[in-house]
Amino acid sequence: MNTSTIEIRVRYNECDPMGVAHHATYPIWFEMGRTEHLRSQGRLYGDIENEGLFFVVVDLHVQYKKSVKYDDVLSLATVVEDCTPARLRHSYVLTKENEVIARASTTLACVDSKGVVHRFPESLVR
Amino acid sequence: MNTSTIEIRVRYNECDPMGVAHHATYPIWFEMGRTEHLRSQGRLYGDIENEGLFFVVVDLHVQYKKSVKYDDVLSLATVVEDCTPARLRHSYVLTKENEVIARASTTLACVDSKGVVHRFPESLVR
Amino acid sequence: MNTSTIEIRVRYNECDPMGVAHHATYPIWFEMGRTEHLRSQGRLYGDIENEGLFFVVVDLHVQYKKSVKYDDVLSLATVVEDCTPARLRHSYVLTKENEVIARASTTLACVDSKGVVHRFPESLVR
Amino acid sequence: MNTSTIEIRVRYNECDPMGVAHHATYPIWFEMGRTEHLRSQGRLYGDIENEGLFFVVVDLHVQYKKSVKYDDVLSLATVVEDCTPARLRHSYVLTKENEVIARASTTLACVDSKGVVHRFPESLVR
Repeated sequence: MNTSTIEIRVRYNECDPMGVAHHATYPIWFEMGRTEHLRSQGRLYGDIENEGLFFVVVDLHVQYKKSVKYDDVLSLATVVEDCTPARLRHSYVLTKENEVIARASTTLACVDSKGVVHRFPESLVR
Repeated sequence: MNTSTIEIRVRYNECDPMGVAHHATYPIWFEMGRTEHLRSQGRLYGDIENEGLFFVVVDLHVQYKKSVKYDDVLSLATVVEDCTPARLRHSYVLTKENEVIARASTTLACVDSKGVVHRFPESLVR
Repeated sequence: MNTSTIEIRVRYNECDPMGVAHHATYPIWFEMGRTEHLRSQGRLYGDIENEGLFFVVVDLHVQYKKSVKYDDVLSLATVVEDCTPARLRHSYVLTKENEVIARASTTLACVDSKGVVHRFPESLVR
Repeated sequence: MNTSTIEIRVRYNECDPMGVAHHATYPIWFEMGRTEHLRSQGRLYGDIENEGLFFVVVDLHVQYKKSVKYDDVLSLATVVEDCTPARLRHSYVLTKENEVIARASTTLACVDSKGVVHRFPESLVR
């Protein structure tokens, strides 16, 4: 299955003077979604780094639909849209009580510790 | 003039275990770019909030080209691409010694303290 | 009961180029501990703010014993040490698999939206 | 000279729903103070890490006196209180227009990439 869902509770420090979660917090949540999606497939991102490979974000697109507040409980669905040897694309839907808060997508590349581009591990490519 | 440029020095805590600035830090820098762009036009975003209006990010797109490290000094050019009563669009070019690190764009909407959409202040609309 | 315990999973962006959780992240976790401790007593900090009172940290002391890494699962025990009308003191023990990672304490004061000092709500004072 | 002073402008995302800089932001500023203090002595912390040594915070104490808001300009004075082979102690005074916002102190230890404790570089010890 290529979708996984996690629950996120908005932290106080993640909110700004408008009283809502700051927009730069969302990419952090999406990264948590990727971590848990990998885990749901029996992989740990930490293991991948220990093997000398790093996944770097090369493209990020977020559409913010509604704001959320401190202590709100959100649901984040993370989907692997595509994985070629060169690119790993995810999409995200963040909801609160079934209302869409944000939609987003990221594209990742795979590099080694010196920043040299590598192919994604075979097990992730479909 | 609708462009302004600021200098940013990468903070230690903004960098991650890869040793490079985390991708969620960039939107924070872009927000700094908007703050200074307004200031360069003789406006303070704080004053706008004190008048009861808030600018919220409704769309964010970032293309990451190169990574940067702790203590690197970057240059961020912020451009107002368009301002209608409904939308304020900026674009950004982040460079390090004339090499492009990232390109980005944001779209902002204007709301009041209850989240109700308002027109952007006349003085910003062109 | 005046102790509560929460579980925390270390986020990737919370870690720095040393590969360990940055020390400025810990106070964020302690704040989460206070939020959940209040909830365990049937109170929501958000409700307190909605009533016009704010708890502000006036003193923070952290002793860092061991470092932790991305994806580590930690346990944070939060204890109310003392609550007078003027001061609310908590202590914290952060552990990983029963090994102490950090010990900390905070002192909070109660203010209104203008920063004027108030007494803590009667229900919290012992 | 063992004191150095830097200017800090409060970022929007550093502020919380109370409209003031979140208390977990201050340790980030203190770290910036240490970076610039080293630089004022002709040393770069990045160079020290490149040589395989890392300075880790083992103790942090902050006393918060006044709050600050978005776009406030602060002055941070960083002082080396003591440097033995085992411990490097700094103190900090954060001010805004000569009013004290916070006082703080940190104690650092020196470790290698595996976390093994080392002596501080001779040039820093007095």
